[in-house]
Amino acid sequence: MTAQLNARGDVAVLVPAAGSGVRLGPGAPKALRLLAGEPLLVHAVRRVAAAPSVRMIVVAAPAAEVDAVRALLEPVAPVVVVAGGAERQDSVAAMLAAVPAGVEIVLVHDAARALTPPELFESVAAAVRGGQPAVIPVLPVVDTIKEVGPGEVVLGTVDRSVLRSVQTPQGFRHDVLAAAHRAGLDSHTDDAGMVEKSGTPVTCVPGSDLALKITRPLDLVIAEALLRVA
Amino acid sequence: MTAQLNARGDVAVLVPAAGSGVRLGPGAPKALRLLAGEPLLVHAVRRVAAAPSVRMIVVAAPAAEVDAVRALLEPVAPVVVVAGGAERQDSVAAMLAAVPAGVEIVLVHDAARALTPPELFESVAAAVRGGQPAVIPVLPVVDTIKEVGPGEVVLGTVDRSVLRSVQTPQGFRHDVLAAAHRAGLDSHTDDAGMVEKSGTPVTCVPGSDLALKITRPLDLVIAEALLRVA
Repeated sequence: MTAQLNARGDVAVLVPAAGSGVRLGPGAPKALRLLAGEPLLVHAVRRVAAAPSVRMIVVAAPAAEVDAVRALLEPVAPVVVVAGGAERQDSVAAMLAAVPAGVEIVLVHDAARALTPPELFESVAAAVRGGQPAVIPVLPVVDTIKEVGPGEVVLGTVDRSVLRSVQTPQGFRHDVLAAAHRAGLDSHTDDAGMVEKSGTPVTCVPGSDLALKITRPLDLVIAEALLRVA
Repeated sequence: MTAQLNARGDVAVLVPAAGSGVRLGPGAPKALRLLAGEPLLVHAVRRVAAAPSVRMIVVAAPAAEVDAVRALLEPVAPVVVVAGGAERQDSVAAMLAAVPAGVEIVLVHDAARALTPPELFESVAAAVRGGQPAVIPVLPVVDTIKEVGPGEVVLGTVDRSVLRSVQTPQGFRHDVLAAAHRAGLDSHTDDAGMVEKSGTPVTCVPGSDLALKITRPLDLVIAEALLRVA
């Protein structure tokens, strides 16, 4: 590999950035929206690259923008850029194909969680290294949660003490993630959901308040404030 | 009533501020924590008072701080301050006792949601006025939600499309909230939860991104950023 970070690291981080989401407004891929003058993807990759266990970073870009994304990230960190697919899971499969068999831990990230600190990549990877086949970072659910039916009528109050709000990076033993993707169970769930359905236990580690998903315009205001203190 | 806002308004807003919560650090009541140099309670009351339908605002303060809270709010808006109880629901009952029978709509707010805009008080009140006995403002749940068991092992992915994250103000027909409190069903749920258990339908209206709950130290950073744009 030419795009190598720590040659003795045991972690590959996959960052899907091929989606063209509309929640921050129409147009450019959402991973390329600007936060404090830089694309979310740049913020995200910079933090991934600062995690000591990371051996390689793979980014999936829209097919037409692979060269542009490669140029964008060249000054940030050594990164392998591949063409993404139509669905998010197609992009994950394309990135997974770029990870050598010898890399034992694979983390799947989300460029929209651009401020996720390096420490969270380390703690998720450490849990996988310690024997967990699949690990997700989570936060407790702080608001009261209701279940609703037709007409937005409340059916009941949900016991939030057993609920966890899931962030990224989601971490997997390389073989576990590869097997779940080969099974191709359901392209509409998260990666941990695919692994869950394959019967492999998924465990939680504490997430980070900085790993919020930046999707709505107001989130950019919040993220800029966090950038100043983080 | 001396502490009157719009004499033709049909809404009383109750703001419990007797809790001494520890999530923003130990010490003062959490409603008195400073945001941009002013207590959360002041920010909250200022926005409540700007809602045209509001006839009166009732605040429950710790018994030892009723006079101090009255003095604090005197320059902000006309407010009735009562001594709160040991439990949140005791405080709500004490505030409810200060609302004349002729005020037909009662909203229960949370001072920690200090940036809730006046428009949200209006839209909740309008839904009650339009015939709904109990109304809560909600946001969709945006993160993936997992249910966990012992050892933080994931039991499954929850269908978040039927979940709503509940904010305040929660709005009620005066008689409906009073009856639920007389029944005194469960002091550990929110007011809408008490009404739900009494068999009265609770419906949802769209909440506001600005109505976030300010509880963790990082929330103050976020709230200060939102203050600059809101």
